[in-house]
Amino acid sequence: MVVVQKFGGSSLATPEHIRRVAARICRERAVGRQLVVVVSAMGHTTDDLLQALLTLNPQAPAREVDMLLATGEQASTALLASALWGMDCPAVSLTGWQAGVSTDGVHRKAQIATVDPARVRRECAAGRVVIVAGFQGLSPDGEITTLGRGGSDTTAVALAAALGATTCEIYSDVDGVYTADPRVVAEARRIPAISYDEMMEMAHLGAQVLHIRAVECALIHGVTIVARSTFTDGPGTRITEVEPLEDRSLARAVAHDRNVAKVALCGVPDRPGVAYRLFAALSQRHINVDMIIQSQSRDGKNDIAFTVASDELVHAQESAQAAAADLGAEAVLAADGYAKVSLVGAGMASNPGVAAAMFAALADAGVNIDMISTSEIKISCLVRREHVDKAVRAVHTAFALAEGPVEGSLPRTPTVAATRRRIGP
Amino acid sequence: MVVVQKFGGSSLATPEHIRRVAARICRERAVGRQLVVVVSAMGHTTDDLLQALLTLNPQAPAREVDMLLATGEQASTALLASALWGMDCPAVSLTGWQAGVSTDGVHRKAQIATVDPARVRRECAAGRVVIVAGFQGLSPDGEITTLGRGGSDTTAVALAAALGATTCEIYSDVDGVYTADPRVVAEARRIPAISYDEMMEMAHLGAQVLHIRAVECALIHGVTIVARSTFTDGPGTRITEVEPLEDRSLARAVAHDRNVAKVALCGVPDRPGVAYRLFAALSQRHINVDMIIQSQSRDGKNDIAFTVASDELVHAQESAQAAAADLGAEAVLAADGYAKVSLVGAGMASNPGVAAAMFAALADAGVNIDMISTSEIKISCLVRREHVDKAVRAVHTAFALAEGPVEGSLPRTPTVAATRRRIGP
Repeated sequence: MVVVQKFGGSSLATPEHIRRVAARICRERAVGRQLVVVVSAMGHTTDDLLQALLTLNPQAPAREVDMLLATGEQASTALLASALWGMDCPAVSLTGWQAGVSTDGVHRKAQIATVDPARVRRECAAGRVVIVAGFQGLSPDGEITTLGRGGSDTTAVALAAALGATTCEIYSDVDGVYTADPRVVAEARRIPAISYDEMMEMAHLGAQVLHIRAVECALIHGVTIVARSTFTDGPGTRITEVEPLEDRSLARAVAHDRNVAKVALCGVPDRPGVAYRLFAALSQRHINVDMIIQSQSRDGKNDIAFTVASDELVHAQESAQAAAADLGAEAVLAADGYAKVSLVGAGMASNPGVAAAMFAALADAGVNIDMISTSEIKISCLVRREHVDKAVRAVHTAFALAEGPVEGSLPRTPTVAATRRRIGP
Repeated sequence: MVVVQKFGGSSLATPEHIRRVAARICRERAVGRQLVVVVSAMGHTTDDLLQALLTLNPQAPAREVDMLLATGEQASTALLASALWGMDCPAVSLTGWQAGVSTDGVHRKAQIATVDPARVRRECAAGRVVIVAGFQGLSPDGEITTLGRGGSDTTAVALAAALGATTCEIYSDVDGVYTADPRVVAEARRIPAISYDEMMEMAHLGAQVLHIRAVECALIHGVTIVARSTFTDGPGTRITEVEPLEDRSLARAVAHDRNVAKVALCGVPDRPGVAYRLFAALSQRHINVDMIIQSQSRDGKNDIAFTVASDELVHAQESAQAAAADLGAEAVLAADGYAKVSLVGAGMASNPGVAAAMFAALADAGVNIDMISTSEIKISCLVRREHVDKAVRAVHTAFALAEGPVEGSLPRTPTVAATRRRIGP
């Protein structure tokens, strides 16, 4: 049975890192595992390439950005394959297009359309460890396209699905998914297992361990993801379909995202189709909109506010201004400097006390809430960026997330009663 | 009419260099030239990548080396294309395979098999400057192959031929072909025009300005090469079919190659097929043999000596030892530390006095000659590496190569009489 593994940039930062990854692959192969390995670019290569490009042209076309960035992963594959040969382990590197990864052709944010695993299968059958460049694939026009940040995770899961592998191991410099970012909350605890839904919310909410599209892809194809550390042999976090247990109905983790910006259209005439025209314009530019709030109508006019990633603020503002002129809105406000703090856990929506407890924790910590959005399994609050750390700590403490289950079993989350005791009046 | 231009690594060493090349391209485009631009990797990128690879595995497979090195040129194309867009000049970067360059599939030393210029033509027709990654092409098996050092020159000429362009401009940090390396001979002079044959000899003999296969390809397809400087507007050197003139029958330039090693098989039984078996073994490993000398037969046994590039000595020695065992030779000697000094000029073979004058000049300078080889248009002498500079200067002076023609006309070379006057009786 083939196992797909993915190693991120921090696991491949230097030749010494690459050698360690190669040694790990050799050990696994020695015990009979057939491996397909997806790699990212080394260390900060992608950022460095992008920096060089923006020096030359801050508005470099997305097609050219892809052409440049794709070299980073390709270089990683050749270096890792060569390191493996140096350890007497037969290996072969493949670019995205050689590995049969086809995309929808949207530069810088391509989605994988299909994976034809014929070449990968052939190389596996020939006894080679196959090293595949993540983050890239070929468009229908024969252009090199990249999948956007974190896209290598998606490559790995899509390859696992195409190969019929049941498990995809994602290696990084952290040893799993935590109840909060350990750099912010010292007592944060690794979660042994988490459901696809919860993990998608967490990825969406800013947890850096896994890319949301990878989790979606794993859910659709029934691939179990194991998030592990390259540098230790811990069990990591399994992302899979966990059984519904009574005590899984509450908070599991706090996620946060520091890079949030807000755009607001004020005084938009209250007509059908207004929201559609605004968000269609944003979607055409491939800008991901996150929280959306429409205020109560007043004098036949609405305010519509939404959030985007900070680095998309300029484009979002342009789109919003064009739409505002078109719709007859009175003004467009745009501001960076926000962050989002989210509490995640399956079935939280059915416990209204959870939201109240979260708001109380933030209020006690002196954090103002700017926007709120909820789903079946999460509550998100937009706060000022400078408040994000204390907000995360306050929520983590309020829900007693550090008090975890015994290692290896499914996690137990605190009851609302326990939570209330902690934040209580 | 399309003009193909090629910019080498030293012309693209930094973002500032790339900006200057982009500005030059914009100027040329503004006066109506339709440009296809072939680029090498930036500065020392190729060496740096190779260094990183050899750290991981000194015997990295050639396939993986190609996979790695090809990223250098690809990155250059994206950066240059982006810089052009930043100057409002529409451009598009293409990898070797996107530009239709197919090779014979020999890794690290591939030859271009065919060029399908359909995509390049389409992009030109759309008004874009086409930036093509040199040095690379796709093998029949869909593998990335590189053409070996200097291969970007060959890409440029092959593209020019495929597009029906009559001229291919090769830009580097030198402003043409010189009568000797100006770093060795201060009074060396730029040659305004030189024939394909002479240029091939000079390239073969170590002149770094152009790659020999590029010149061969230009000869076959009737493409005129112009070797120019990226950093000045001088006319450079035209490599073309120059008319046979009476005074072109003598020495034109001195070339040298510092990295020569010698392998000798001693006491090889004098049987038919011996040379074939030895050199077939070397050729199978794609080792280029340069000078070959077989001594007179003595006791039914021969000595066979040949030279190779220094960095191929280890492989050449292995091949020679295998062949020696096979052929019953007595010993194999191998030594690095040689250099080759060559005098080039069309029709020198018909003037026996030229060889004598060259040997006299070397003797006067106290330089021992280890091997000699001659052709229709060159005389090469193998010397110890530490003697190469004084040998080049002695020959350049003896043949009065610094006394050039008036700029822009065909070069005039000194007569044998003048030569003899200088080197005395």
